[in-house]
Amino acid sequence: MSIDVLQEKICKRKNPTVAGLDPKPEYIPPHILARCYAQYGKTPKAMAAAYEEFCKGLIDALAPIVPAVKPQAAYFEVLGHDGMAALENIVAYAKQKNLYVIMDCKRGDIGTTAEAYAAAYLGSVDIDGTSYAPYDADSVTVNGYLGTDGIKPFTQLCKQRDKSIFLLVKTSNKSSMEVQDLVAGDRLMYRVLADLAVRLSTDLIGQNGYSNVAAVIGATHPQVLETMRAKYPQMFFLVPGYGAQGGTAKDVQYAFDRLGRGAIVNASRSIMCAWQKAGTDGTDYGARAAEAAVKMKNDIGLYVRIL
Amino acid sequence: MSIDVLQEKICKRKNPTVAGLDPKPEYIPPHILARCYAQYGKTPKAMAAAYEEFCKGLIDALAPIVPAVKPQAAYFEVLGHDGMAALENIVAYAKQKNLYVIMDCKRGDIGTTAEAYAAAYLGSVDIDGTSYAPYDADSVTVNGYLGTDGIKPFTQLCKQRDKSIFLLVKTSNKSSMEVQDLVAGDRLMYRVLADLAVRLSTDLIGQNGYSNVAAVIGATHPQVLETMRAKYPQMFFLVPGYGAQGGTAKDVQYAFDRLGRGAIVNASRSIMCAWQKAGTDGTDYGARAAEAAVKMKNDIGLYVRIL
Repeated sequence: MSIDVLQEKICKRKNPTVAGLDPKPEYIPPHILARCYAQYGKTPKAMAAAYEEFCKGLIDALAPIVPAVKPQAAYFEVLGHDGMAALENIVAYAKQKNLYVIMDCKRGDIGTTAEAYAAAYLGSVDIDGTSYAPYDADSVTVNGYLGTDGIKPFTQLCKQRDKSIFLLVKTSNKSSMEVQDLVAGDRLMYRVLADLAVRLSTDLIGQNGYSNVAAVIGATHPQVLETMRAKYPQMFFLVPGYGAQGGTAKDVQYAFDRLGRGAIVNASRSIMCAWQKAGTDGTDYGARAAEAAVKMKNDIGLYVRIL
Repeated sequence: MSIDVLQEKICKRKNPTVAGLDPKPEYIPPHILARCYAQYGKTPKAMAAAYEEFCKGLIDALAPIVPAVKPQAAYFEVLGHDGMAALENIVAYAKQKNLYVIMDCKRGDIGTTAEAYAAAYLGSVDIDGTSYAPYDADSVTVNGYLGTDGIKPFTQLCKQRDKSIFLLVKTSNKSSMEVQDLVAGDRLMYRVLADLAVRLSTDLIGQNGYSNVAAVIGATHPQVLETMRAKYPQMFFLVPGYGAQGGTAKDVQYAFDRLGRGAIVNASRSIMCAWQKAGTDGTDYGARAAEAAVKMKNDIGLYVRIL
């Protein structure tokens, strides 16, 4: 679904945040791990089953509060095909629960390879006349270092299937400056990527005025958010780096327009691991995650009013 | 295994080429497809089984000729978890056959996410004391747009496990110029990435003088290859874009040093689909692939003598 739909979901819940689903073994409540180990032994299948149960529980708890979830593919890939089966099930479950699903996989390649990635995460593959969509997420993160050849297969699917992408523009990490902050001619490097996103936005501007070719800009760069908000009025932002990485509610306010629209802020650990911070045994992980999500919503609400 | 091992395998076979494993439904010989459809129906499982049989057959035919294979993850990802199971089996089979395996997945992320990608493709994951390595490739392609934060988790595994990476420097596609050829300060953008690779090469230079932090530079840019070969004497090159994309044996000669070392050239379709070009029914796809691989070796041999 398009950025219009994401914005609608945000407005409906008055909550511009997305819950990152980045499971790691140490985040899983012991009762889930114990059950999965008992069933499958100490295997990738057991861990994948634990990730699936944990993430589905988070989705159940968070669906009334957040408009979107963002599964991080890497954590599933490291479990091999068992991990990917869990990821498929988690995406389907989140969509069932009416959440917008942003697949965070930062793919980027050229030609038919980029087409395969786009088909994998936003589209479908044809198997002798039968169409099969392994993930069918609403949106995907894309790395544009290879230029428009690498991005177009994704934007074509945005047009055909009413989806969106988030192009990496200015990432939240410290060393992003090594590449993204270099001056390339008259522009900073990350502006080059932002301009590519604009160029690829033809026929992809939604009814709310935002493009389905959106951008990732880290919460750790509030000044960049402020400048980019002013310079790119049609660009929707995904803002990672809130919480553990140092971004605050005060910082992310600059990502939003005057109506409190145009951006969504990600938090992962602070929500997933709220049960650990509370010092519980983890059986209440869903309730704790929900509390943390409401707290984040309220924190951002101090600075951003969604009209 | 390290770039030293790759170079040894190249020298032993006097063949600086890698066979890309980029399966698509239309490349698979009909007899394989028919058997897999009969067994599994028109499902992703059937197509994954067909990819696995096809790629293993190619590996059998090519192992005496080429030193390395390069599976392209995208084509397996589009089949969901069934595709990833096939990819696991193909990597294991290629390693058994003593081939160097370069996983072409162009991953790039930050922090613990980059660690998860590195663990997935070059390392292992710990499941309550039991170590599990889903792919355990010898090398992986990496996108460095996020800076050294995104690359270091991979280079750490290079050190710990004697592996290598290929950082995207100058890709073979036309639109690579939109980002990679911009002038950033005193350097072209792709040189910035090459310099990051050099910076991360500490303790990673092999006995043959080449770094385990290697680079991707397209065959479609012979002048870039020539300049880079002179400027980066310790940088090993993976050269895609040969054949279908327009790169020739004459073009790729500039990737090699005076001993005919320091680079490996990729071909995918010309080898995988040799049976189609020959107009056969596909039952001889292995023999045809072997012929095409020998032809490529000989074509490059006209320009490059490996000492």
